[in-house]
Amino acid sequence: MAKNAFYAQSGGVTAVINASACGVIETARRHTDRIANVYAGRNGIIGALTEDLIDTSQESDTAIAALRHTPSGGFGSCRYKLKGLEENRAEYERLMEVFKAHDIGYFFYNGGGDSADTCHKVSQISETLGFPIQAIHVPKTVDNDLPITDNCPGFGSVAKYIAVSTREASFDVRSMAKTSTKVFVIEVMGRHAGWIAAAGGLASDATTEIPIVILFPEVEFDQDRFLAEVKAKVAKYDYCTVVVSEGTHWPDGRFLAEAGTRDAFGHAQLGGAAPVVANMIKEALGYKYHWAVADYLQRAARHLASKTDVEQAYAMGKAAVDFALAGENAIMPTIVRTSSTPYAWEVGKAPLAEVANVEKMMPGEFITEDGFGITDACREYLAPLIQGEDYPPYKDGLPDYVTLNNAGVAKKVGTSFEV
Amino acid sequence: MAKNAFYAQSGGVTAVINASACGVIETARRHTDRIANVYAGRNGIIGALTEDLIDTSQESDTAIAALRHTPSGGFGSCRYKLKGLEENRAEYERLMEVFKAHDIGYFFYNGGGDSADTCHKVSQISETLGFPIQAIHVPKTVDNDLPITDNCPGFGSVAKYIAVSTREASFDVRSMAKTSTKVFVIEVMGRHAGWIAAAGGLASDATTEIPIVILFPEVEFDQDRFLAEVKAKVAKYDYCTVVVSEGTHWPDGRFLAEAGTRDAFGHAQLGGAAPVVANMIKEALGYKYHWAVADYLQRAARHLASKTDVEQAYAMGKAAVDFALAGENAIMPTIVRTSSTPYAWEVGKAPLAEVANVEKMMPGEFITEDGFGITDACREYLAPLIQGEDYPPYKDGLPDYVTLNNAGVAKKVGTSFEV
Repeated sequence: MAKNAFYAQSGGVTAVINASACGVIETARRHTDRIANVYAGRNGIIGALTEDLIDTSQESDTAIAALRHTPSGGFGSCRYKLKGLEENRAEYERLMEVFKAHDIGYFFYNGGGDSADTCHKVSQISETLGFPIQAIHVPKTVDNDLPITDNCPGFGSVAKYIAVSTREASFDVRSMAKTSTKVFVIEVMGRHAGWIAAAGGLASDATTEIPIVILFPEVEFDQDRFLAEVKAKVAKYDYCTVVVSEGTHWPDGRFLAEAGTRDAFGHAQLGGAAPVVANMIKEALGYKYHWAVADYLQRAARHLASKTDVEQAYAMGKAAVDFALAGENAIMPTIVRTSSTPYAWEVGKAPLAEVANVEKMMPGEFITEDGFGITDACREYLAPLIQGEDYPPYKDGLPDYVTLNNAGVAKKVGTSFEV
Repeated sequence: MAKNAFYAQSGGVTAVINASACGVIETARRHTDRIANVYAGRNGIIGALTEDLIDTSQESDTAIAALRHTPSGGFGSCRYKLKGLEENRAEYERLMEVFKAHDIGYFFYNGGGDSADTCHKVSQISETLGFPIQAIHVPKTVDNDLPITDNCPGFGSVAKYIAVSTREASFDVRSMAKTSTKVFVIEVMGRHAGWIAAAGGLASDATTEIPIVILFPEVEFDQDRFLAEVKAKVAKYDYCTVVVSEGTHWPDGRFLAEAGTRDAFGHAQLGGAAPVVANMIKEALGYKYHWAVADYLQRAARHLASKTDVEQAYAMGKAAVDFALAGENAIMPTIVRTSSTPYAWEVGKAPLAEVANVEKMMPGEFITEDGFGITDACREYLAPLIQGEDYPPYKDGLPDYVTLNNAGVAKKVGTSFEV
């Protein structure tokens, strides 16, 4: 007897999380003997808790295929972490109640570390409650901080966006440096890990040399050493580009972005490591500067997605369904690198018990000794992840992204649940 | 007897100014009987004043062709405005001295309003001094504020970048709005004219509806009305995107970006209309927000250039040379729109006397009555300018942009000149 599947997107969305959704749904549609329908959670797991399910069978094959080239979360995502089983058993029991009512046999949860943990618990409690559900986690995070998998879908495209943008803006500054801007500062995501900041380093390579200073969250900010480095680069190249992670912090742990900036009314001004760094350079060295904060643009930039990343995101979604049909439970498909040059990878799997709540940081040997750059080992790791272009179709000069109908599934449980 | 040509890039660079350079040099190379060589000013007009010329004949055809897909100013640009003839005759005489020494018969100056003025004066003084030079201005400005020409090369690509980025980030926010970010603010260039901000409005169209509030420099900022508009949009759509021009200002003329923000040391904090707007929304309405400042990324984004823009930038460079060879002087090639639907344009020309020092603002009928959006007339004007994609070649996942050798020309004048 075919069961239904439940799919939900969790946490911050990416340029390719919908490619994973596409992989899940297209693969499920090829096995209707086993998976009758895929219900998606409207706005993530909240959709399951409130029994607000989306009937994906009402979307055409064309619409589902278009998810592959559409950024963001097509079904809506949420930042909502389920607590531990002990603290909040009610939430898990509610999930089971909804899943049971809709005959859900498969749970595909597309997210980062927190959702891997939730996925694991769903698998455990479903057994305890005698309503077994195969729970498979589909990896997604721009932060690239999941363990075991070589990299995370979502990261490669952000990395490509930051590398390309850093190169382009550096060319701009180089043109203007004689009489105008000498320093360009770009702020990138990554509060805890410097993977995205590291990608900025790829903008400079053997054929295109660009003076870049990277500020990693892994390296305590040393203002004097930083300013000396910028000064030396400008002296040598006449200009300099600074890639600053939003997570860059002082030795006492305070983020640069929270350095006490106040607006005209004395209110604390949130955000912006880039302007802080830029002003610091202006004050100390007098250089004219420009700064950019890419923010959501970097993780939404499907127009510049990495082909490798799109393929891997799709493959993880497909593998999740394949694994489920093969009887697997409480696992996450992973990307296994078998070679860096030439790049080759295959699909592996990891037990959720080993994935949940483990954060993968940048290895120390990926950051140069001075703390401001990336090593050859880091380049070897990063380079394949930004390979290839995978342009979306355009209409009237704009990417033709799909907006799904997201028709709801009739409620069956009959009770409401507050989240 | 063939004369040499001088070419220089002026002011802020763009994604396609090098495409104009490519048009000038490739066309000149097809007429070596009339144009012996093209010398480029290193860092713009400063290169002429200091006799720091670049010998473009030492660049291969392949390298020159690659300029077409390379953003920024390949020869360097500068922000350096020559004063009027009366105040600073010495500078113009110096230009003539250098041009005479290097047998320059053609002056191609690639820039905005200021450089059109300089170009005009060069033409005038060269006649007065009995060393006639044909001076042709090649239009370039992301601000789209040159008169007579329907639009300016450089603008279409920025417009496309802002339209695409606004659409992508809006999809992102829409995904997250249930539990997280409800308002996304993107700051765009355009201190005096709202052309670039208007392009953000293209992100929403008949098939992809996005709630967007645009803040134009042409419309005095009214905080209460703005907040009411954002509130209404969030009430209706659950999220909202704000496109704010860097030139948005209060009724008294103060820019939002200079709203008195101070850092921890009490120093005035420069820049950032986006964080000011975002904080204002948070304080008044309590919505979680994210903000981005695209800055140089928007004008350097050759990876997302408008095909129309690239073709027009190249055509303006080519036309400049063609006009010069046809005996024209003191003119600027222009883009003449002959039809909007389907889009058709041809090359025209305008006398520099009518171009210099005239700034084209957005027509009032391009802004909706409430001051927060674009009209259908505006869409009709903008839409063709972002049409088509013109991707650069990629190598190792990054655009393969050219860096020229920029070999110098031996000095002949023998005197130095301070700029």
